[in-house]
Order: sequence, then structure tokens, then C-alpha cells
Amino acid sequence: MILSVFYSRDTFLRIFKVLFICYTFAYPNFGFAQEIKSPDGHLVAHFSLSDSGEPAYDLWYKSKPVIKQSLLGFKLKDAPDLLSGFEVNETSQSTFDESWKPVWGEVKEIRNHYNQLMITLRQPKTKRLIQICFRLFNDGLGFRYGFPAQDSLNYFTIKEERTQFALAGDHKAFWLPGDYDTQEYSTITSDLSQVREKMKAAITPNVSQTPISATAVQTPIMMKSKDGLYINIHEAALVDYSCLSLELDDRNMVLESVLTPDVLGNKGYLQAPFQSPWRTIIVSDKAADILESKLVLNLNDPTQFKDVSWIKPIKYIGVWWEMITGKSTWSYTDLSNVQLGITDYLKTKPNGKHAANTLKVKSYIDFAAKHGFDAVLVEGWNQGWEDWFGQTKDYVFDFVTPYPDFDVKDLSSYASAKGVKIMMHHETSGSVRNYERHLDTAYKFMVDNGYNSVKSGYVGNILPRGEHHSGQWLVNHYLYAVKKAADYKIMVNGHEAVRPTGLSRTYPNLIGNESARGTEYEAFGGNNPDHTTILPFTRLIGGPMDYTPGIFETKLSKLNPGNNSSVNSTLARQLALYVTMYSPLQMAADLPENYERFEDAFQFIKDVAVDWDDTRVLEAEPGDYITIVRKAKGTNNWFAGSTCDEQGRTSSIKFDFLDVGKKYLATIYSDAKSAHFSNNPQAYQIKKLHVNSSSSLKIKCAPGGGYAISIIEIN
Amino acid sequence: MILSVFYSRDTFLRIFKVLFICYTFAYPNFGFAQEIKSPDGHLVAHFSLSDSGEPAYDLWYKSKPVIKQSLLGFKLKDAPDLLSGFEVNETSQSTFDESWKPVWGEVKEIRNHYNQLMITLRQPKTKRLIQICFRLFNDGLGFRYGFPAQDSLNYFTIKEERTQFALAGDHKAFWLPGDYDTQEYSTITSDLSQVREKMKAAITPNVSQTPISATAVQTPIMMKSKDGLYINIHEAALVDYSCLSLELDDRNMVLESVLTPDVLGNKGYLQAPFQSPWRTIIVSDKAADILESKLVLNLNDPTQFKDVSWIKPIKYIGVWWEMITGKSTWSYTDLSNVQLGITDYLKTKPNGKHAANTLKVKSYIDFAAKHGFDAVLVEGWNQGWEDWFGQTKDYVFDFVTPYPDFDVKDLSSYASAKGVKIMMHHETSGSVRNYERHLDTAYKFMVDNGYNSVKSGYVGNILPRGEHHSGQWLVNHYLYAVKKAADYKIMVNGHEAVRPTGLSRTYPNLIGNESARGTEYEAFGGNNPDHTTILPFTRLIGGPMDYTPGIFETKLSKLNPGNNSSVNSTLARQLALYVTMYSPLQMAADLPENYERFEDAFQFIKDVAVDWDDTRVLEAEPGDYITIVRKAKGTNNWFAGSTCDEQGRTSSIKFDFLDVGKKYLATIYSDAKSAHFSNNPQAYQIKKLHVNSSSSLKIKCAPGGGYAISIIEIN
Repeated sequence: MILSVFYSRDTFLRIFKVLFICYTFAYPNFGFAQEIKSPDGHLVAHFSLSDSGEPAYDLWYKSKPVIKQSLLGFKLKDAPDLLSGFEVNETSQSTFDESWKPVWGEVKEIRNHYNQLMITLRQPKTKRLIQICFRLFNDGLGFRYGFPAQDSLNYFTIKEERTQFALAGDHKAFWLPGDYDTQEYSTITSDLSQVREKMKAAITPNVSQTPISATAVQTPIMMKSKDGLYINIHEAALVDYSCLSLELDDRNMVLESVLTPDVLGNKGYLQAPFQSPWRTIIVSDKAADILESKLVLNLNDPTQFKDVSWIKPIKYIGVWWEMITGKSTWSYTDLSNVQLGITDYLKTKPNGKHAANTLKVKSYIDFAAKHGFDAVLVEGWNQGWEDWFGQTKDYVFDFVTPYPDFDVKDLSSYASAKGVKIMMHHETSGSVRNYERHLDTAYKFMVDNGYNSVKSGYVGNILPRGEHHSGQWLVNHYLYAVKKAADYKIMVNGHEAVRPTGLSRTYPNLIGNESARGTEYEAFGGNNPDHTTILPFTRLIGGPMDYTPGIFETKLSKLNPGNNSSVNSTLARQLALYVTMYSPLQMAADLPENYERFEDAFQFIKDVAVDWDDTRVLEAEPGDYITIVRKAKGTNNWFAGSTCDEQGRTSSIKFDFLDVGKKYLATIYSDAKSAHFSNNPQAYQIKKLHVNSSSSLKIKCAPGGGYAISIIEIN
Repeated sequence: MILSVFYSRDTFLRIFKVLFICYTFAYPNFGFAQEIKSPDGHLVAHFSLSDSGEPAYDLWYKSKPVIKQSLLGFKLKDAPDLLSGFEVNETSQSTFDESWKPVWGEVKEIRNHYNQLMITLRQPKTKRLIQICFRLFNDGLGFRYGFPAQDSLNYFTIKEERTQFALAGDHKAFWLPGDYDTQEYSTITSDLSQVREKMKAAITPNVSQTPISATAVQTPIMMKSKDGLYINIHEAALVDYSCLSLELDDRNMVLESVLTPDVLGNKGYLQAPFQSPWRTIIVSDKAADILESKLVLNLNDPTQFKDVSWIKPIKYIGVWWEMITGKSTWSYTDLSNVQLGITDYLKTKPNGKHAANTLKVKSYIDFAAKHGFDAVLVEGWNQGWEDWFGQTKDYVFDFVTPYPDFDVKDLSSYASAKGVKIMMHHETSGSVRNYERHLDTAYKFMVDNGYNSVKSGYVGNILPRGEHHSGQWLVNHYLYAVKKAADYKIMVNGHEAVRPTGLSRTYPNLIGNESARGTEYEAFGGNNPDHTTILPFTRLIGGPMDYTPGIFETKLSKLNPGNNSSVNSTLARQLALYVTMYSPLQMAADLPENYERFEDAFQFIKDVAVDWDDTRVLEAEPGDYITIVRKAKGTNNWFAGSTCDEQGRTSSIKFDFLDVGKKYLATIYSDAKSAHFSNNPQAYQIKKLHVNSSSSLKIKCAPGGGYAISIIEIN
């Protein structure tokens, strides 16, 4: 249902005479303003235009300021700026309310309900038009810029976007250093005023990184105001545009857009007509609402895929953790230099530690089949891993040629006979021209050999050299790879790609991304114990993360004596992550032998669903704890997960989400009394009890701990 | 036949004690030297190593210095340079003599005969090895650098190549301004000492240009010494490396290598083992020998194509000159902004001047069939030409979607029925990522519709932005497009691509390049009258040029009243170019209606061959005149062409190239007495006479004129 009200310029001016009076006191320098409200009336936003014709907006939640008057516009290259000198040309308001069903997701149906204000601005001196479209939902605001087709604005280059978020105070923030290449930082929790002093230590080494400034941060950024508002800022529908970061003015607490530059320092090459990605502000006085928000998805376009039957959530294991921990290698030899098509691997000396060999992969397939996993990821199967990294090597992989000890045909038929898929791995080493050149052949190879999903990787600096992981050039590439995958009915799980912005609504074969510090960092020194109490409020706002939980053996020296890392989590909490870290793609990342040591706990990983009809956030406080229950797709069974920080806590939950009158068997996987993420992570207990909709429970979570519950309907 | 002599280090040092004495006087600072001679002994080259371990070489022709002692080496980025501190590790000499048959060419068989000196140098401080390989032919010297596989030199980045050509004097030079993006300049003829003063005026506007410096020039550069030596410097086998230009030290008359940088300013990213392109010096005391040299082809690898039956020389016409002159348009509408897949051309207003419409193309096909042409080039057939240019537009063309008035299927079957091919046109607008993304689809579309050759174009600045037409990134691209074309049995004619370096030996489906100022510039203000007396000595040294001669109507205002250009050539000379400007791809570029006005002259274009068993350069002086006869493939018929500068002249030729005892009918197309390129270009005369091997002729060439002769054996 769409309700639209179009105002003519005259009517509009009459309305604004009234509005002008209303806002004169609040906005002494702004001679023009228009208001919209969210459908429930709790959120109010204004668009305003200063006397010098600068566009601005503000946002209020239950009469509290969320965003104070904040300027909008663009600096252009070799053309007059689009910052001021505007007058209102036309406005229209409309209402939209519709429900849609995601191909996969946390809930069966999503309501997309908003009031829209569309402003068309004209810059008389240059005869140029721009549009700003505001959509106010009950859970927040989205707005984007439009550049209509017009004679006076055709091709143009963005020097910088000026989108401000003037915050109402020195909020507590959960932030990552702004970086044009990586999101693999630990989240820093601090007041905004402390960002500057904490930045240097926050910028930990990465194989490709370009920190932006002393106060720049990434989106999604999560904040909490002193008066209890939870505020999340991100973007939605990042298509053919460069990724947004935020520069903090830490005297005035204003966040301002910083787009990722290309190699020439330009921020975007646009052709009108064009619409920018949405800038999003999710806000509530309840932290749980942030986690339940579907605003980012709603701001993406519905999918145009006609057939989505081939897109299926995946629970998988993989030949991966043993390389990450250093127990095995991706490479087949210890050569320091190879050339594809020239190096004859049959004449080289194997290093004896190559994991992706036919025999081992078969044992993983056996394990997957035995325990009901959909797929086995295999990394390091293809030639080129000896010098794939850090050389900005152009022709680094061809994505189709296996090492001598990996028998593609044999494994394909073996997996197929066992009802298991092998998950393809395409590491690009950042060499995207090379990847695009091989993409059709690589995807066709997958189809020919029965692979239906691919984990792609972009480790290291980008080729074309000087381009950034988050720039317009790469943003275009990632989506190109996803769209082309769809032509082959292939699902994509992109690692080191740009942070997601809800594009999986439009392209549901984008079933996962990394784009943050995943479990692999537990093997590189460890993640903070509170890491998983923050990620759902930050990185996951844009889309699912392939976090790869499920590490049972937390002392990594047991896998590789040279690795002194420990996983900063209890075993019970590793189970919880399958629920708290939403993804349609979930890995059981540990070695099969470690699961066999803890078969009772492993049962939860085997049981837990990866697609859901419903989701409830029962408890949440960013940086402290998250407790979520989800209803498995097409069943009456629920799964709960709870994660907490290094403090530990007692979780109190009610089972009122269950159907009244039905009986359920709950199996509770929780930390033992003595459990602790650092010195006693494997102490867990498993209890079974009957529950119904009037049950409630208190469950103790160890420091860095948590729990998981399967709640199965008893017929 | 290969004869190799390997010297051990000891033997080698003993030899050098002798050589050292010989060269002590000539090279006071060089403590080491080794000599090679050309098979005929006329050329002598030395490799030498200074006391500080700097590698150098020199070259002598019949005891005259061609290249004085000139340094060799590399500056590297983030690594010690490869300039000095070398010692000789190993040397070997060998002789090679073999004949090979080109797939197409100026002669049936080419002799590849040289003496080779291979030097392996070691830099003890860094433990790195490099190699320098010299091949001395009777017609000149080629040398290249090699980087053997080694632990101490793996991946490396070139900051600059230091290859000097220390000339023996202030030669007369035929040069173009050095430029990283374009070769479409008029050749300047001047002494080397005048390059600096003439540079500014020489840099005429181009849509993509990056002049290098006040004294940098391009290769191939042609020079003539005051004592009568003709010297040509170029490169051969440019593969995965950036294109060479030459910086002139105009006090010492030393040319030194300047490689094309990438966007970061680096000159090349290499992985050992690697071999650089060859640096070539063709030299003789006869100008004709330069034109007959096959040194550049000989330094390229033999083709690995097993089937070459699909590669055929092409004589073609095209829907092209009418757009070049401004009579018609490439675009279908006058819109200023279109988006592929979004702009609905069926709803737009045609501009009425779109040339590539079905009806017109059919008339061109009719004309081609009637007059025996192999193909019709059609430009502007596909959507996107409204704003293709100068916008660095990424998704500018898709190479498969025709304008509404161009019926692909209808035209394909129409052309097929008439025995004519349509030549595809892929203008990339420099957007090479976009081109590569569509390449398979575009080539497949060609195969599906019966096209077997493509003219590709790279007009405007390159995407990825900041890369240059002559850089390593693009050099890699052009060859990628040619190799992939071979997979589809497609021949490529690349315009605005890097200047050729003989790669057509290895990839004979590369049947042409533009890469210089072609006939199109006659419609943009004109080419110098001596242009075609120089190009065979410069641009054509690297490979054939799609010069597109055959303009009969030289006053372009007759095609388009707004075009005041005149073709700076007589009509008779336009015919000569089919012989003097060697190419397996020859266009008759004028409109069919203009050929119908001059049917007697047109007969030569219809008769002339495009593939040859033999070639003789009868007269030649760069910048003044060239007279060539060629024997048509598989026949006893010969075709002669002569072109001269703005002075005019009388050409004297002997027919002693004809078989003794055979009779021939010569049809001579020459300038009329009153002809002149500027005020009477269309005055020509046609005479027929019988000739044999003892005949001789004097033929008057008008200023900017010339002649053509067909010499047909009488059975």
C-alpha cells in the first residue's frame, strides 16, 4: 500500500510559512523545515534548509534528541559543490506498509512500514537538482541522496560526501578504527571523547590496512547515550558507491561521512540518474530492539530472482582450522616461488603437511555424513598457495587446478554418494582482475563437479594496485561476483570483502560474509571475551557473518605446539554462538577428533537449526550479554543461546515465547560452576528438563561463558 | 641448428685477460669485455663490465660506432639496485640459423640467423644473478635481460630500467613525443639536438595523452647519422612488461630507457624467472635494409597455434569514414546520457544520422560482394555511443546489444549469402575491466553470428583510472584479449593499443594495430605529406598498421560541409599505400560512391594482394620517398607502390625482380603532370605496358604523390 501526497511548490510554501514559525525558535538559522513521524509516532525527523540553502536534518526519539541538526550534501571534483545555495523545488510525503518473506532469515516474515519524505532541491546558480529521501520507520531513519537525470548534472566525481550525524552527547561507543581495507579489528568500548586517545592501540596489524585518521571509525557503530538511548549508524544497499566511514569531531560529537577513495583520491564516479546507498540510524531505548531491527534489510530492494529453490542455508565443517592453527598447511610444498602452468608439482617435493589431500578430505566427508552436515569446506586444494600472499601477485590462482594429491573427480563422486557437498574455496589474494578473468571458468568448474557454494577471500592488498577493499571499484566487483554466481546457482560467502549492507535481500545467494574479526583470530592471539556480545550490535546489523564458531579444544598448542593462543570462550558459549550470531551459514570449525571427544556437547551443534521462523531477543546489553531464542524453520522447536562478557552473570529467561499448552523438552548446555574462559573453558554441564510457556529459568554464565538450549516439542 | 660454447669461469677469465688488453685503450674504465660479431661480420658488439661492476655494451657497423659504450641495469623499489657491483659468473656463445614461414607476411620465408652471447652476472653483495642475452644479426642487435629463479631475487618492483643507447653523433631523427598514452602524433624530423626546442609544438592535443618530458621520444625511433648510417631503435616481444620510451640526454646524445609507470609510479612488477622484452637496434648504410629487416619478428617466439587455417589476410570496406568525417554519427540518438539496460532506445528519438543501420549496411555488403572485398567493418552498431567518450564511464558498452535499427540476424544471413564477412567493432572507451567482463560473451556472440575478426578500440583514458595505455597492466590486457580471441578463432585489429613489437609472429591472429596517426587524421586537419614516407621506418617496424588508405575524395567538405580538412595526398599515392604500408589487413576507407566515381583507379584496390611471397624495397629514404614491390602470395604477379614527400620527385625503378623470360602486363596508376596533393590531388593517369625483367621505368611523382603498379604475368 502506498499513500502519496504531492505538494505543488505554492502549497508547499504555504505549509512552510506555518512550519517556519514553529521551528523559528529551535532553528534560528534555518528558515525552512518539514517534519515526518514514524508510524508509531515515537520518532520524529525534520528536514530543514538554512538561510544560505544548506540542507540539514535532525532526529528525535520520544522527544529526546538522537541526531541534532546535521548538514547534508557533497563536495564535487572539478564542479561547484552541492553543499549550499539550494532551494526547495518539490516535496512529497507517502506511507508504505507491506510484509515480505525472506528467502532465509531470522523470521518468516518482515514488515516494511515507513513514512517517506522526498525533497527535491534546486541550486539556482547551477540549475542542478538533487533529491533527499527520508524513510522513517518505527525502529529508525534511513535517508539517501538522489541525482535525477538532468542536463546540468550528468557525469560527476565526488570529492567527499558531507553527511553529518550530530550526536546529542558524549555517548558510550562500540567502535573500530576507520580503515579503507580491513574490518578485522577488536572493538573498542569507550566514550566518544576517548576515541582519539585509544586509536593508536586500537590499530592492530593486518596484512592489508589503511587507517583513515586519528578519530575515524567504521560503521556499523553502536552507541549508548547517557540517558539510555541505543543508537546504531550504518548504511544500506551499498551498490556502485564507495563504503562509508565516519570521521568524529570529538569536540562537538559530530560524526561526518568519509567515503573510501580510489587510487587517485576520488570518492566516487557517478552518472545521473543515481541514488546513493541509504544512511541508517537505528534507535531505541531497548537494546534488544536494535538486534531485532530489520531496517537495513527493508531499505534494500526485493530480490528479482525468480527461482530461489537452489538457495539453502548450510551447516558445514571444513579442512580449515588445522591450517589456521598452524597444524597443517594450505600449500603442497615449501617452495618460495611458483608459477601457475610452469611449476610442475609432480616434480616438486611435498612438504608432508598439506591438509587438502584426498584421503583426509574423505575422512571429513565421512564425518559430515555421519553427523548430518550439509557440506565440507576445503581450503588449499588448488595450486599456488606457496607464494599466494603479500606479493601483489597478479596471476596467483586459476581456481580450477588441484594439487597432485587432491582428486577432484574422486572426491566429487565420493561426496555425492554420501549426500554431502564440498564447499569451494576461491582465495583471490586481492587480485581481482585475475579472479574476474577466471570467474566463469571457475564457476563452471564448480557446477561440473557438484559444488553449489563458494567461500571467496580477498586477503592482502588489492590489484589493481592502490585500490582499497572498501572502494567503489571493489564494491562493484564483489557484487559482480555474487550476481555471476547466481547465473550458475552458486551461493557466495565472501571473506575480506566490504562489510555487508543488507544486499542479501536483493541477492539471497550472498549467504555470508566475514568482514570482521572472526574465530580465526582466536588462533592468532585471541578475541576479547566480550567480542560476541558486541558483534550482533555492530557487524551483524549489515548481514550474517561466517563467524565459524564451535571450537571445543581451546588450547591451541594441543593442535600445534608452536601456537600459544587460547580461545577466549568457554565451550558452552561456543554452542551459544550458533544462536546469538545469526547466519544461514554455520560452521563447526573444530577438528572432527575434538568433536568426538565431546560428543554430548557436539549434539547441540548437530541439532541446532540454521534457518528460522521467529526470533526473540530476551536479554541484551552491548558489550555485556545477549540472549536470543529462535524458532527453527517449519517446526515448533526453539533454540536459545546466551553469551556474556568476561564478568560472567546470571541469565534470567522466561519461556513465554512457547505456544501455550504445548510441552517441550529442554536440553541445557551451560557452563559448569567452576568454568572460566581462560582457566577452565571446557567445564560444562548438560541438563534436560520439561518446559512450557509459563516456565522460567535462571542460568549461570561463567566469565566469557554462556549457554545453549534446545527446546524440542514433545508430541 | 644451435651451436653453443659454454665457458667455465676459469676459461672465461683467461679469455678476458686477453680481451682486457685489447680494450684497455678504448675503455679505460672498463676492465672486462667480450665481443661478438654478426654472421656476416659487419656488425660487432661488445659486452663490458666496468671496474665498479657496471654492465655495458657497444655496437659497431663496418667499423663505424653505432652505439658507444652504454650502461645496462635496473633501479629497484625497496631493494638494492641492479646497476653496479656485478662480476661475471658465466658466459656462453652460440650460433643459430633457421628459416621459418610466417602465417602471413611480406615474404614467404624468413631467415633467423644470429650469434648469441649470454652473460650471467652476479652481484656478490646481494647474491643476486641477472643475465643479459645479446643476439647479433646481420641487420642489427637485440638484447634482453633475464632474471633466473633464485632465492635472493623472487618478487621485485622496477623503479626504472637503465638501458642506454649512447649515440655516436647528433643524428637526424624521425621522432614522436614520448607519451604514456598515445602514439597519435605527427612525426617530427629534426636533429636530436633540436628535440627540446621542437617538443612543445610536437605535442598536439589528444583525447588521452601523458607526455613524458621535454626530451623523451617514442620507439621505434628512426635516425640517420651524418656519415650515412640508418639506425632504428625499438623493442621486441613486449609481454607482461611496460612499454619502452627513450629519454634523450641532448648534451651527450644518449637515449635512456623510460618505462611506463603504473598509477603508483612503479615501472613493473616482476617475478623471477622472467625475461624482459628485447631492446633492438637495426642498422645499415642502406635505408632499404631497415625496411626489409625481420629482426623484430625473429626475436619473437614461434607461434604455438596448431591450427592457423582460420587466420586470413583481409581486404575490407567499412561503415566508418562517414562518421570520421562527420557526415554520419556512431550514435542512434542525440541524448547526452544513456545507461545500458535502462535507456529504452525504442522510446528515444533517432537523430536520423545513424550510419550503422540495416539498410545502409546491406548496401555496403552489396558493394563488398560486387567488388570482391572480404569484409565490411561496421562501427556504431551497438548501444551506448551517445556518451561513450571522455567520461571514464565504467559500464559503457556491452558489445552484444544492437541499436534498434541494426538487425544482427538479418545482416548476418545477408552477408553470409553474399560471401562477405561483417567485421565486428569493440570500442572499449578505455574501460578495460568492463571489456574483460564481457569478452567471452562478446566473442561468443561473434562466433554465433558469423563474425571472424574484430577491430577493438581504446579511445580515452583507461579504467582502472590512472593506468596508462602503455603500462604493464594494459600490455597484459591487450595480449589477454588476443589470446582469448584465438580460443574463438577470431582475428584482432587493436586500435589505440600499445605499439606492436612483433608479437604477431607468436599470435598471428593479431592481424593489425593502429597505434599511430592513421588516415583518420586526414579528416581531423590532415597528416603531413611526408607521413607515409616515415611510418614504414618507424611504427611499422613493430608490425602491420591498419592505416586505412584509399581516400579518393580528398576534399572532406564534399562529405560534410562542416569539415574543412583535406587529405594531404594525391589519389594515385592513396593507391601506392596498399603496397608501401604493409598490412595483412587493408581497408578501402572511402565511401562506395566515391569509388564508383573513379572506377578505373579503384581497379587497383580491387586487384592488389594483401599477402605476399616476396618483397623488395627498390628505393627508400626516410621522410623523402619509399618504393616497394611485392609478389602476391601464390602467384607470379607483383604490385608496386611509391610514396614521396611534399617535394615530389622522379622515381627510377628496374624490373629485375621479375622472372627472367616471363612477360608481364603492367598497369601504372600515377600522378598526372599537374597533380599536387593540395590543389590537384585527383589528377591521375593510368597506363598499361608490357614489361619484363630487363625493363626499367622513370615515373614522376607529384608533391605528396606517388604511384601504384600492378604487374600481372601474361600466360
